[in-house]
Amino acid sequence: MQTSIPNWLMQRAFLTPERIAVQDERGQKTFAELHEAVVTRARQLASLGVRKGDIVALLMKNSIAMIETIHALHYIGATVLLQNTRLTSHELLWQLEDSGAKFWFFDDEFEKCANEISTIQMMKTSELSMLPEQECEFQHEYHFDDVATIMYTSGTTGTPKGVLQTYGNHWWSAIGSVLNLGLYENDCWLAAVPFFHISGLSIIMRSVIYGMSMYVMNRFDAGKANDIIMNGNITVMSVVSSMLQQMIAELGDRTYPNTFRCMLLGGGPAPQPLLEACRDKGIPVYQTYGMTETASQIVTLAPEYSITKLGSAGKPLFPAQIRIENEGQIVRPYEPGEIVVKGPNVTKGYLDRPEATKRAIRDGWFYTGDIGYVDDEGFLYVLDRRSDLIISGGENVYPAEIEAVLLSHEAVEEAGVTGISDEKWGQVPCAFIKLKEGYSVNVSQVKAFCQERLAKYKVPKHIYFVDELPRNAAKKLLRRQLLQLIPKSEET
Amino acid sequence: MQTSIPNWLMQRAFLTPERIAVQDERGQKTFAELHEAVVTRARQLASLGVRKGDIVALLMKNSIAMIETIHALHYIGATVLLQNTRLTSHELLWQLEDSGAKFWFFDDEFEKCANEISTIQMMKTSELSMLPEQECEFQHEYHFDDVATIMYTSGTTGTPKGVLQTYGNHWWSAIGSVLNLGLYENDCWLAAVPFFHISGLSIIMRSVIYGMSMYVMNRFDAGKANDIIMNGNITVMSVVSSMLQQMIAELGDRTYPNTFRCMLLGGGPAPQPLLEACRDKGIPVYQTYGMTETASQIVTLAPEYSITKLGSAGKPLFPAQIRIENEGQIVRPYEPGEIVVKGPNVTKGYLDRPEATKRAIRDGWFYTGDIGYVDDEGFLYVLDRRSDLIISGGENVYPAEIEAVLLSHEAVEEAGVTGISDEKWGQVPCAFIKLKEGYSVNVSQVKAFCQERLAKYKVPKHIYFVDELPRNAAKKLLRRQLLQLIPKSEET
Repeated sequence: MQTSIPNWLMQRAFLTPERIAVQDERGQKTFAELHEAVVTRARQLASLGVRKGDIVALLMKNSIAMIETIHALHYIGATVLLQNTRLTSHELLWQLEDSGAKFWFFDDEFEKCANEISTIQMMKTSELSMLPEQECEFQHEYHFDDVATIMYTSGTTGTPKGVLQTYGNHWWSAIGSVLNLGLYENDCWLAAVPFFHISGLSIIMRSVIYGMSMYVMNRFDAGKANDIIMNGNITVMSVVSSMLQQMIAELGDRTYPNTFRCMLLGGGPAPQPLLEACRDKGIPVYQTYGMTETASQIVTLAPEYSITKLGSAGKPLFPAQIRIENEGQIVRPYEPGEIVVKGPNVTKGYLDRPEATKRAIRDGWFYTGDIGYVDDEGFLYVLDRRSDLIISGGENVYPAEIEAVLLSHEAVEEAGVTGISDEKWGQVPCAFIKLKEGYSVNVSQVKAFCQERLAKYKVPKHIYFVDELPRNAAKKLLRRQLLQLIPKSEET
Repeated sequence: MQTSIPNWLMQRAFLTPERIAVQDERGQKTFAELHEAVVTRARQLASLGVRKGDIVALLMKNSIAMIETIHALHYIGATVLLQNTRLTSHELLWQLEDSGAKFWFFDDEFEKCANEISTIQMMKTSELSMLPEQECEFQHEYHFDDVATIMYTSGTTGTPKGVLQTYGNHWWSAIGSVLNLGLYENDCWLAAVPFFHISGLSIIMRSVIYGMSMYVMNRFDAGKANDIIMNGNITVMSVVSSMLQQMIAELGDRTYPNTFRCMLLGGGPAPQPLLEACRDKGIPVYQTYGMTETASQIVTLAPEYSITKLGSAGKPLFPAQIRIENEGQIVRPYEPGEIVVKGPNVTKGYLDRPEATKRAIRDGWFYTGDIGYVDDEGFLYVLDRRSDLIISGGENVYPAEIEAVLLSHEAVEEAGVTGISDEKWGQVPCAFIKLKEGYSVNVSQVKAFCQERLAKYKVPKHIYFVDELPRNAAKKLLRRQLLQLIPKSEET
């Protein structure tokens, strides 16, 4: 029997109406007030024709209005497609077409993208509030198998796929987290990571499930984040390494109030000096491993292990399991293999991609494509993200996607992309190109070509022209050997 | 798709092996140690022939050994029938036969019951540890639809029925509670209520789901319970009114450490003087409403409302819903009717009682048979068990309401009210009162006190002073046995 429980925000507005639900630098709303705002927004969306089952795309920056719009779409029973605001018009349009989205709402600043997209009903979010209200039927219960949200990831193939996140996935992710981190009466979660990523969206879900306050930052700023924490009301914050690094640098000699109890660090392993600096400042860092397909963290390292188990992502959350496989066999501790995960927080698959879904999920286990091992106590160590995933400032960058763009240039015969260490961003993409005979093109021309087609963080920071790319006998590109070409080639 | 998650204690032994799981006055065990003991016990049970799917009855008093036996049976995949230790041999046998239990294990002190029961394979619990061990397959995952435990209740009809409690029911009960009460790193739950009642068993479940320590009392003793709390390691305790009353009296001028954060009070509405005494002592009382069929609390009142919403059981836990029905219609606030509840913590029915199940559960809603109303903010007020309803001259009279008035009299320690036949009115209310030591009051004084506070038809027509009220093992008042006190007591 499918699990159904009351609509989360409605239940909060009933059970804990006077608690603060959301706040930002301009103000705050209780759960009752948030519910009121969401009802209004839902009726406005209904008047536009948004109906239960529709896929509705949002291109918005973090704001209380974005939270309201997501909840409003869930009140109606629509599925929310969350788009990365750094994508190009080309990339956005691709997602809209692939998903069959019926509506597209964007913050005013993205209007110029809108001019290039005309195939879908769209509206500026600032105009939504001017719409008339129309009565509509609300979802008073959420069904755990229903799809709440969709986020696109590229994975190994380079073709973005829409990850289906059900209400059940979000619920179980929140519950797995609470059983690990606990829940205190005064908890307030600082949300400076984007809501279009699962790290940010999951804070919105926890807020209504826990009845917990969240503080919304429109964009991350290390100084402001530190000031907000120093004010004493924040107890938990989600970050990636590059954010934490900036915050530690900005913090100077100050230390956080001791009510601050969790710095949840995702987006790849953290450098030891950063962890040591946090330890010295008494900042409790919880390193995590997770992905869009697991509806946020699935493995977390408690702070007491952050130095002794340096480099480990920790152990699974309570409802989840992990194992390491090599050629279909579970391997022994310390032997590397593919990280395979299971749990009710794991996606049921990809939108309209039955084959990709079947490849990724077998017997209830999700094959992450990431490489790692567990030690003899069961702590997970992630060696390499799925097929050469580059993590740059917390954003996932897929080499195959950049290679596909490079290969679409008339002068390019072959292209290979890999990550290279970068002090500020952790990693940045680096491209190796073999030109077609008789063609000539320079680095800035290639970068300009990419900038039109790729989000800025995906544009290769370094480009090298080479005579040959490393390939195995089957001619498969060996991305991990690309960096060895650097000394031989002419840097740019 | 059915939800399955890792075996709870096994997962705890993996994730948080060194945390204290259970303790009593003689010692303590970590989750790793508890798991070890459970593996041994499970293998001993397997050597006796206990198999997956068997129903196994336990007649035990609270102890760490009882916790181990319950987990061991779950490791094997057996269903545990928990029996009230105050039942007669006749009643115990009835349950064993009705349930088709294959094994029966009892603490040594209940041996004389065993002599009267010979139809089933049985063993003293002290002898289990002498059994050889036999390898057996363990349940590495718990399936939410599988029945974990059975407890018999009489309900409104008087015929005991076995309530099926699934792993999912226990899980959701624990999660509903944590989303209401929070979860602190130092939490330790004092278990002085019996494990054969859901109030006690649910503490065992929360302990392994939360990774939380629990302190086991073999039997309730107000002085000892106070001493344990005063030691400073207890943060939460489950009680019923009469236990709390004794503890407050015994406590004298002392106050609990401020780390003690929740007194979870079940088993019916609490008298105002008790709540006021707790408020004055800074004891945070959470009044609750729940039953065997809801796998413990389903409605809970936060302490900030314990005086302003006096007599209310509060609002539903997050995953649950309530409504009040009268003749199939949902009634308006303040109108009394049957309390109907819904949620994933609610039983799927009664063992081998399809008709009773169909009567009790309709469209996913469970009909409790209890009478109550909700106020305009949605707070539930439980008026009475339907079977205790007194109908006098066409007016509905709820015993609990009269008892609350009697309990507010300074001389009254305990009060119980039931209906008695009356030639003129059909039934009239009849009160039984236990006076506080050193107080003296007569019948006309009590009647005058009531007349000031109750409509005339609610004032007890007969009042008896007694030494003790009939209560079950959970200290719940047994109103149906009150009339048996009449011949023994001095009529008025």
